[in-house]
Order: sequence, then structure tokens, then C-alpha cells
Amino acid sequence: METHQFFLSLLIILLAARLFAEIATRFELPAVIGELLAGIVLGPSLLNLVEPTETIRLLAEIGIILLLFEVGLGTDIKQLVRTGGSSVVVAVSGFLLPLVLGYTLAFYLFDQSLLISLFIGGTLTATSIGITVRVLADMKRQHSAEGQVVLGAAVLDDVLGVVLLALLYEFSTGGGISVLNAGKVLLFIAAFFVLAPIAARFISVLIKRFDSVSEVPGLLPTSIVSLVLFFAWLAYEMGAPELLGGFAAGLALSRRFFLPFAISLHSDEGFSHRIEEQMKPIVHLFTPIFFVYVGLSLNLRDIDWGSGFIWLFSLSLMAIAILGKMVGPFMLRQKSAARWVIGLAMIPRGEVGLIFAELGRVSGIFNNEIYASMVIVIAMTTLFPPLAIKWFYRRFGALLDS
Amino acid sequence: METHQFFLSLLIILLAARLFAEIATRFELPAVIGELLAGIVLGPSLLNLVEPTETIRLLAEIGIILLLFEVGLGTDIKQLVRTGGSSVVVAVSGFLLPLVLGYTLAFYLFDQSLLISLFIGGTLTATSIGITVRVLADMKRQHSAEGQVVLGAAVLDDVLGVVLLALLYEFSTGGGISVLNAGKVLLFIAAFFVLAPIAARFISVLIKRFDSVSEVPGLLPTSIVSLVLFFAWLAYEMGAPELLGGFAAGLALSRRFFLPFAISLHSDEGFSHRIEEQMKPIVHLFTPIFFVYVGLSLNLRDIDWGSGFIWLFSLSLMAIAILGKMVGPFMLRQKSAARWVIGLAMIPRGEVGLIFAELGRVSGIFNNEIYASMVIVIAMTTLFPPLAIKWFYRRFGALLDS
Repeated sequence: METHQFFLSLLIILLAARLFAEIATRFELPAVIGELLAGIVLGPSLLNLVEPTETIRLLAEIGIILLLFEVGLGTDIKQLVRTGGSSVVVAVSGFLLPLVLGYTLAFYLFDQSLLISLFIGGTLTATSIGITVRVLADMKRQHSAEGQVVLGAAVLDDVLGVVLLALLYEFSTGGGISVLNAGKVLLFIAAFFVLAPIAARFISVLIKRFDSVSEVPGLLPTSIVSLVLFFAWLAYEMGAPELLGGFAAGLALSRRFFLPFAISLHSDEGFSHRIEEQMKPIVHLFTPIFFVYVGLSLNLRDIDWGSGFIWLFSLSLMAIAILGKMVGPFMLRQKSAARWVIGLAMIPRGEVGLIFAELGRVSGIFNNEIYASMVIVIAMTTLFPPLAIKWFYRRFGALLDS
Repeated sequence: METHQFFLSLLIILLAARLFAEIATRFELPAVIGELLAGIVLGPSLLNLVEPTETIRLLAEIGIILLLFEVGLGTDIKQLVRTGGSSVVVAVSGFLLPLVLGYTLAFYLFDQSLLISLFIGGTLTATSIGITVRVLADMKRQHSAEGQVVLGAAVLDDVLGVVLLALLYEFSTGGGISVLNAGKVLLFIAAFFVLAPIAARFISVLIKRFDSVSEVPGLLPTSIVSLVLFFAWLAYEMGAPELLGGFAAGLALSRRFFLPFAISLHSDEGFSHRIEEQMKPIVHLFTPIFFVYVGLSLNLRDIDWGSGFIWLFSLSLMAIAILGKMVGPFMLRQKSAARWVIGLAMIPRGEVGLIFAELGRVSGIFNNEIYASMVIVIAMTTLFPPLAIKWFYRRFGALLDS
């Protein structure tokens, strides 16, 4: 590709992502919906203006691992400990139900293969922390009792989702579906999750030392991006998807992450803050490229909208996606209003769901119709809850404070 | 390319650039020399560890335009007005002499074609502001009388270099060498340099308005990078090299740039500062990729080191590169010691020289031997002056203050 053409493509992607995200937020919708829509408009579905070339794809891949890095960086392990049982109930039920129900539906009713059905179930599992945090913050409810349960559950949910992704990834690329294979992957992941944060923490101490003596500017952005790339590569080499590495690196550098047995390496608030400050512009530059890329990969024209399959399939998956997250909260000892809020807040799927769907497409597991259905379901579950929660708080918010 | 391979390549590039740059500065050498060396070590000349793929090349291209954006952002037009005549004498002589002498040498003594000879002369013209500023700042001399002359001259020199680059670019890609063609390019560039900053300033006012109301984070990095990409693409469409657009965008957003007839758009110190803060991590992430890429493109093994050509050619060009910059200062009414410092400070070629050489290589104008010679000359002129200036200040610094 010629340089100027690449510049033009990248320019159009960044501008369209920004424009559609701004419009989305004006309508009180999540920005990610706008970015997805930008990709659909620019791609083969509508204008066919931008081609998702190899380079654009690789930039999008950097976007995902940096996004997962940021999610890891914002993950508060203590949160889980504080909200404890309630979060675990919400997270585990909200993970298992969509997985099992989605799998059952796809396998038995829609006659899909075992692997496709597992991927469909997997795509429905993970709640989007980003969108959930955003909606709660908009309503100034992120520190409320129900807000704390939701945040704790969303963290655990994400970890479960990423582990499942690693498992399905191994099944799809490697040795097929077997208990032995699954055990191997889980062992690797466990080792990775224990060792990676320790290694990353040691490396960050090294970076900090260098930072105080280096005379070449830009140490933090280059070394942190290198660290993220390294862990992404390492994750791949250990049989897990690259983004798991991004997540582990973020977790290790997060301000709220403590290694119980490595007290001497306790985190330095100022340094963590500087990392966040310098990484933010880079993360914000790359992540929209991923969501636009998802939209670009989708060809709505290829879908047989008259066949009924896509409608029936999308609608039934959507029902599972909503129901699967609402059951858990109603098992809690909480006020009825709080249960509703927690359930609604867990529904948005957003980025991790899209990453699942994208992996399914790239591995050739999802055909265009199933991929389109998954993206539609994710978009709908991301669109509707923010509006519902806002409406609910305005109508029943008083019940929660009394 | 597989994602994990790309991650690994990028990781190695970033880490090696950082490592070699840190080592270089320990020996009081410019960081850019370290980054260049990193590329030579990783590339076909030595280890053959990293392949300069299409995607790496495009990331390097983003690196150059962002670097030129930063140079533009740091350009102080008032500086030129203050130091006036002296800077103009130093800049113009230091631009014309290397160009004419380099051209003459290549054309008459080494029997190169007209275009190759012009490119060789052009590569020798531009002083590296970055390295010069750095050395003066290290000696705490950037605000001295001789320091001011050097900075003013380096700014003008860069503008002349970039214009010449645009001219040679048109000759090499388009209609060949003709007065008509040159006139057309100069007209375009003049129009671009007048209109682009005005347009960029208007756009920056727009961005600022948006910035105060936007709810989607990351407006500044995405919109400034978009702006730079847009001007790079526009420059190309107007027949100039892409990096001219990066330079113009930086110039327009610089804190010290004023449009005489657009007082209402006067720059906002706080906003310019925020742009710099948010752009720095991104610029620092991308620029080393360019210098490593230059090293990767160089194959020292292909060169016939026994032929004598490369030795004779490099050494005579080096003499011209040094002499060409030393004549101007000795035409000034200054103390002899000041003349020496000014001359030495103008010698480092660094980034603009490398951009010239790279363009020559990509357009097929420079063969591997000439390209290698140019890179060697640039590396040597960049290596030697910082050491010489420091030695000179320690030995004769007292003469300058009296």
C-alpha cells in the first residue's frame, strides 16, 4: 500500500470513529456503539470506502491488547474481596448461564457444531466493565452498594471470560476439544496469571530505576508498550490469546494490585499515575481502530435477511444474553430495586464480546451470518441497558436510598 | 504476517532502539546514533533478526511525519527575526555550499547522473535542530549569543532543506528536471506554507471547542494525529513529500507561531501545552521506529569494501559536509571562538539527512553503496560535533564570556 493511501485510510478511520462516537454520546449511547457503526458505514456494508488491510488489522490488534492492558490497569482486586459473595454469585451465574444456554440453543436448536456452539456461548459471557463503569459514573452511583457489587462482578466476569477465550482459542487452533487439552491450557493460564504479574512487577521496578537516570526522552511509553507486546507474545507462545498478556501486564502495573508475598515491590502511587498519564493518549489513539475494524469486517450485504434464520437466531440469543445476566441478582438478599439495577448493569457485552466474535471470524469458526448475528446481539445488549438503567434510576432511585 | 510475529518484531525494534540509545548517551553521543545502530545490528548487515515488512515501514512513516510535526511545533519564528542577519548568513551558506559542492563532486568526479548528484548534495544540506539544541542545552549554552545564532540558522536551514526535498521529490517521481516543473512545485509549496498553517489554526480552534464539550476521552491525541495525517496526505496530493505536511501542521500549532493577520486566532498557551503533553508519548513511541528502519534498510554486507569507491566517496563527502557548514560562521563579525562553536554546532545532519537518504533509496535513485555512504556520512557528522563542541567549550569557553 502506498504511504499516502495508508495515511488517508487511517485518517478516515480515526475521524469517523470520533465523529460517530461523539454523536452516540449526544444520544446518551456508549461511544463504542458509535465506533462500531463508523466501521459498518465505511466498510463493505455501506460505502466501501476503507479496506481493512493487513496493516490496519495489525494496528487494530495493538488496539485490543492496549485496551485489555487498560482494563487490567483499572482492575481492583480488593473490590472483589470487599463485595465478596454477592459479586461472585452475580459473576459466576452471569458467566455460566449465557454460556450454557447459548451453547444449548446453538447446538440443539440451530444444529451448529460443538466448537461453533461453544464460541457462541462464550461470546455471550463477558460483561463490558468499561460501559458499566461509565453508566454508573454518569448516574453518580459507582460508589453505591449496588454499584460495588456490579463492579466486583464485572471484574471476575472479565477474568472468567478471558480464561474461556484462551480455552476456546486452543480448541480452535490446536488439538481439538479434549479434557487433557483443556487441563493443559488451564495449567498454562494459571501459571501465566501467577508468574506474569510478578515478572511484570519486577520489570516495572527496572523501568522505574531507568526512568530516573535516562537522558533519552520517551522511556515510559516505549518501555510500557514493549512490556505489553512482550506479554502478548508470551501469552501466544503459551497457547493463550495475545490479549491475555495485555490484561496480565495491566493487572501487574495497576495501582491497586498487590503481591501478597512481595511486599518490597509494593506499588508506587506516583509512578503508576505517570504510567497512566503517558499511556492514555496511546491507548486512546489505538483502541478506536479496533472497533472500527470490527465494523469493517462485517458485510451486512452478504446476509440473507429474508431467510428468517438471522432474525430468529439473533432474537433468541438476545433473550439469553439478557436473561442469563438477570437470574443471578435475583438470588441475592437485596432490595428488589437493587436487583434490577445490578442485572441491567451486567447486560452490556461490549469489547470482550467483540473480541470473541472477531476471533471466531478470523479462525473461520463463524461464517458471515453467525458473525453478523453476534455483532448485532452485542450491539443491542450494549445499546439498551444504559438507557434502561438511567430510566430506572430516575423512576425508582428513591427506593434504593431509603 | 501473523499477529504474534508482528508483536515480536515491534517489541525487538522498540527495545533495541531504547537499549542502544541509552548506551549512546552514556558515551555522550546523540540517541539517534544508537537507534540507527540498533537497526544495523538487527537488520541484514548483522543479525538478520527483524524483517522491515510493509507494516513496519508504514509505522516508520508515521514516525517521520510525527517527528517533523514535533520539529514544527518547536520552531520559533521569532527566533529568526531576533538573530536576523547572522542566522541567515549561516543558514544560507550552510545550505548552498554542501548542496553545490556535493553535487559537483558526485557529478564531475564520481560520474553520477544529474538527479543522483542533486540528491547527494541535498542530503548534505540540513542541520539537525534536535541534536544541535540538545548539545547546547547540555552545555547550558542555548541562550548564549552564539547559541541563538545557531538556533535561528538551524530553523531556516530546515525549512530550506524541506523545500529542496519537495523539489527533488517532484523531479524524481514526476516530470523530470525542468524550470517549469520547479516553478510549479515552489508555487505549490509557497501556497501550502501560507494556507496550511491558517487552515490548521482554524481546525485547532475547532478541536479546542470540541475538547471542552466532548464526553469521549482521547479527543486530543486522535484529532491531532488525524490533523497531521491529513496535512501529510494533502502535501502528497500537492506534489510535495508527506513530511512537509507534518512540519506545516506542527508549525501552525506551535506556541510561538503567530498569524499576523489573524489576531483573533492567537494561540492559547495552555491549550498548546496540553497538545504537547498528550502528543509527546505518541511521538516518542513512533520516531525510534523510523531510525531503526533506516538501519534495517541498510545492508553493509552487500558493499564491496575492497573497491576503494566507498572509502573515497564517503571521506570526500564528509569533508564537504564539514567544510560547507564552517565557511558561513567565519564570514560573521564574531569572536573567533564563537565562529568555531557556531560552525561545529551546524554540522550534525541527523534526521532530515536520513529522510533524504531514505527517500533516495525508496525512489531507486540511490543504490545500496551510495545509500550506505550517505548514512555513514550522516552518522559521522552526527557523532563527531557533539564531542568536539563539548571539548571546545571546556577548553575555550572562557574566551566567549569575556
